Amino acid sequence: MNQRQQPNVKTENLITSLQNTQVKRVVLLQQKSAERRRQGLFVVEGQRELGRCLAAGYEIEEVYFCPDLCAPPAGLPVVPVSREVYAKIACRDSTEGVVAVAQARTLTLDDLRLPVNPLIVVLERVEKPGNLGAVLRTADAAGVDAVVVCDPLTDLYNPNLIRSSIGAAFTVPCVACSSAQGIDFLKRNGITILTAQLQDSHLYYNTDMRGGTAIVMGAKSTGLTRQWRQAADAHIRIPMLGALDSLNVSASAAILIFEAVRQRGGGSQ
Amino acid sequence: MNQRQQPNVKTENLITSLQNTQVKRVVLLQQKSAERRRQGLFVVEGQRELGRCLAAGYEIEEVYFCPDLCAPPAGLPVVPVSREVYAKIACRDSTEGVVAVAQARTLTLDDLRLPVNPLIVVLERVEKPGNLGAVLRTADAAGVDAVVVCDPLTDLYNPNLIRSSIGAAFTVPCVACSSAQGIDFLKRNGITILTAQLQDSHLYYNTDMRGGTAIVMGAKSTGLTRQWRQAADAHIRIPMLGALDSLNVSASAAILIFEAVRQRGGGSQ
Repeated sequence: MNQRQQPNVKTENLITSLQNTQVKRVVLLQQKSAERRRQGLFVVEGQRELGRCLAAGYEIEEVYFCPDLCAPPAGLPVVPVSREVYAKIACRDSTEGVVAVAQARTLTLDDLRLPVNPLIVVLERVEKPGNLGAVLRTADAAGVDAVVVCDPLTDLYNPNLIRSSIGAAFTVPCVACSSAQGIDFLKRNGITILTAQLQDSHLYYNTDMRGGTAIVMGAKSTGLTRQWRQAADAHIRIPMLGALDSLNVSASAAILIFEAVRQRGGGSQ
Repeated sequence: MNQRQQPNVKTENLITSLQNTQVKRVVLLQQKSAERRRQGLFVVEGQRELGRCLAAGYEIEEVYFCPDLCAPPAGLPVVPVSREVYAKIACRDSTEGVVAVAQARTLTLDDLRLPVNPLIVVLERVEKPGNLGAVLRTADAAGVDAVVVCDPLTDLYNPNLIRSSIGAAFTVPCVACSSAQGIDFLKRNGITILTAQLQDSHLYYNTDMRGGTAIVMGAKSTGLTRQWRQAADAHIRIPMLGALDSLNVSASAAILIFEAVRQRGGGSQ
């Protein structure tokens, strides 16, 4: 059956105008974090990401889909759009045909329900949404209990963040707060603070991560502020054995987070 | 001193035309891998990358630089270009002002000089230059002895690869070959082949990587061909403890490569 002739799609409602108010709203939500904050909404793009968003219990306001590209997602309020409109509202070079508007949720530190000996990842002043998304993807794989982004320079519903997380933005509890709030929370809960930095540090793999542990990273491996370095219980370092002097934050995060997984015997049960 | 008035730059030679033959050649070398192969040349962009390229002993044919953006690099054949021309030949959104044309070097497996118990990273059929560049950056940090790219779908001098490697493309010995050649080389040299795959595998951190070891990854963590899986001495797996079913290849590479570093006591000497 041709997807244009799906019986449950009223193609007479197909939005074809780029000037349509709804279309303009989606574009604004994709592009402007201030608009996302003001409306309490965000945009999720792609079948896989939408699936993860639904599985995590987010409220979906509407799903814009292009009948030329895919079947309408079942059980959701769908809005059919032309191919041209789809190209306008889709951020990425995609032929998946699905862009949804969902209600944002704001998690605070007090909302976190942590197990005994939690593993927490803290990122200070991360600039690039893509880096944050990549860390979230790794955090999901490692079963990290929470990601805390301190003094963030991006919002948690940035489209590039959601994209590079391939939906981990919805599966990993993620809190934005100030560094002071983050440090206070970790201290109050008796969680060991390990800051990744080159100076005055121990090799990461000689550092015990089996108790409650927060791995704290800056935007660059050496870029943590004094506030965090002073709050640390230990400073940890990934050895740099080549010609370059730094790793990408997502590579550093993968190495440190999975060292904690290894020490805890993750995956061997 | 205003950089426009640098005494050693003949600004009368400033290239201002986008139709200039040299300008067109640089653009072609940036965009076309076939052109890079045909001419045996590639483009390196950015101060840091050019520095690493020079340190690695590459021959530089010429350096295009924009006097509005930076001083001319010392000791190199420089060609001053206007800001407009620079924007045309620069691939990335950069204000560094330097784009150089360099002679490619083609390393073969037989050129590799390996130490006792080498650590080698093999990537099969990697598609995205950015992923390969990120793996090279991590391989540099880990002191990996060689990166072997088998049946690659990108060339080793792709501008995005060089960019995401931040110059590790020049510091890590990197060979492109067929999978059959790669397997034969590793077998002949008695190097243990560990393939990253989810099925029928051991936890990576329970696998000995202290002897001569090749860590083999596909474009996706489960994407290796049968050829490699059958050639393997052991299959290794990163545990997936969350909702998602895969890691990015650069995150997987960081985890596996630095597990070898840990087992070998890297950085503790």
